[in-house]
Amino acid sequence: MALPKFVTIKEVGAREGMQIEKGPIATADKIRLVDMLSECNFKKIEVTSFVSPKWVPQMADADQVAAGFKRRPGTEYSCVFLNAKGLERAAATGKFDIRGNLYGTVSELFCKKNTNRTIEETYVDLEERIGLFKSLKLPVERVGVMAAWGCNYEGDIDPQRVMTMITRLLEIAARNDVKITGIALADTMGWATPVTIRRLVGMVQDRWPDKPVSLHLHDTRGLGIGNAFAAMELGVAEFDAAVGGLGGCPYGAFKGAAGNISSEDLVHMCQEIGVETGVDLEKLVAAAREAEVIVGHPLPGKLIQGASLESYRRKLAA
Amino acid sequence: MALPKFVTIKEVGAREGMQIEKGPIATADKIRLVDMLSECNFKKIEVTSFVSPKWVPQMADADQVAAGFKRRPGTEYSCVFLNAKGLERAAATGKFDIRGNLYGTVSELFCKKNTNRTIEETYVDLEERIGLFKSLKLPVERVGVMAAWGCNYEGDIDPQRVMTMITRLLEIAARNDVKITGIALADTMGWATPVTIRRLVGMVQDRWPDKPVSLHLHDTRGLGIGNAFAAMELGVAEFDAAVGGLGGCPYGAFKGAAGNISSEDLVHMCQEIGVETGVDLEKLVAAAREAEVIVGHPLPGKLIQGASLESYRRKLAA
Repeated sequence: MALPKFVTIKEVGAREGMQIEKGPIATADKIRLVDMLSECNFKKIEVTSFVSPKWVPQMADADQVAAGFKRRPGTEYSCVFLNAKGLERAAATGKFDIRGNLYGTVSELFCKKNTNRTIEETYVDLEERIGLFKSLKLPVERVGVMAAWGCNYEGDIDPQRVMTMITRLLEIAARNDVKITGIALADTMGWATPVTIRRLVGMVQDRWPDKPVSLHLHDTRGLGIGNAFAAMELGVAEFDAAVGGLGGCPYGAFKGAAGNISSEDLVHMCQEIGVETGVDLEKLVAAAREAEVIVGHPLPGKLIQGASLESYRRKLAA
Repeated sequence: MALPKFVTIKEVGAREGMQIEKGPIATADKIRLVDMLSECNFKKIEVTSFVSPKWVPQMADADQVAAGFKRRPGTEYSCVFLNAKGLERAAATGKFDIRGNLYGTVSELFCKKNTNRTIEETYVDLEERIGLFKSLKLPVERVGVMAAWGCNYEGDIDPQRVMTMITRLLEIAARNDVKITGIALADTMGWATPVTIRRLVGMVQDRWPDKPVSLHLHDTRGLGIGNAFAAMELGVAEFDAAVGGLGGCPYGAFKGAAGNISSEDLVHMCQEIGVETGVDLEKLVAAAREAEVIVGHPLPGKLIQGASLESYRRKLAA
């Protein structure tokens, strides 16, 4: 299949990145980072997480961050919430384009550790969650599967289990008269390879050809960008990524390991292979360098040091 | 094309990695690293560089390193030399499986900066070099092109220029009755993408189907491992790589940028996609961690933190 003409990148560094940082990050720094990312012209930015400060103290200032950042026309701003209370907090800020998702975690052990619920309990919760979205007149657009390729607690995940979970999630949606338009797959702990990306994404595309696949990839073992390329060749045209490669999973039992694929490295690859993203790469590299200053340690994104090929071409043309 | 069954990895960290480090590295540490790499069961290890200590002071102890490391049966040990004097020093140690190569640099500006010779002068030098190899009864096996995808000084390199250089190098070999059995291509400054890997490697394979391509890739912009995968799908079955992702080009004008693709990340990908390397991955990850201690700063290889998937599977099976 040909590469997509345009790839949408959802920038998740401000949320997923900040969540894993140990040191306290000043609210003003978080806001500044979101505003810098907005200036890069991302189609989608995930800003923060409305979760209990007891469990995720790094997100205790979510309301202030939401109040502080400037919305840029043309960007869709999202946030994470896990329950009705979080959703209400998010909605109250008036700053988000809230869209519902029906997400499950295909690893029973990780599901339990991450959410304190079994997979079967999650399905029940989602029925309630749909009701909540409907009562607030919020669209429910996607179903999604986390840890879709493997899990540090359970090992490899059989693709058939992912297919079963997607089927169950789509049934829940259908039962509640909700039209699902896309399927999100997350390689939460970096278990995918280009070969298994093709296998699972191919299976999902064959079964549900009308529901575009979007991917959330981690670069834990250096395969993230190669996995993204393999997926693009299957026509996948939406990816989560984090400025500087911020992030990682706090419950993933391997602290210090690489986080999300770096959005600047992903944008750079797209630019070099002729895939548009709409993102201003040089502003994004500047934001990645600023993100390093904000978190106070080096980040894994390669362009922070390597610089883009376009920057060399411009210098040479000058 | 199917993935190769076996990929040979030439471990170049001890040479290319040490060459770029600023601080002095103790000779004993260099020897220890080579010995650790030997224990990993690499088919090929590049140990050191016999060059002028005036230009590369980090390699002033090349003779001592050569004297100190233990040869492991089954591993081919190589070294770098740029002239007759270097070759004589290398041969005198009796520790190396010296094989001749005819290398050119396709970027005129980089050639000049790196070697103080023009491309045309290089061709003349190579005629002499072949004579030297023949007089010492050393086999000349490969032709190679450096900066084959692009150059920080010249920008993108037209694949036709690479084809022309290979043709010239093969002509020099033929004129001197030397049988060339392989073609090496180096992405010295990280300009390749999976798309351009396919283009150039495909062109070379089409023209010289009897001369297997080997690759030297850098991860300057995060594309190294994805590039290796793209090449393996074309049947490329030999790669240079460096433990921990050590290395980089001292003349590359972008200090601090990522170096060679990390050998442990490459071995890990191979293992996960069913390609054999013969390398003991867990010993290699231990060597990468030791390499970090030796150079005194974090290295970019992901498995240093991320750990291999097999290590998780073993833990889970226990």
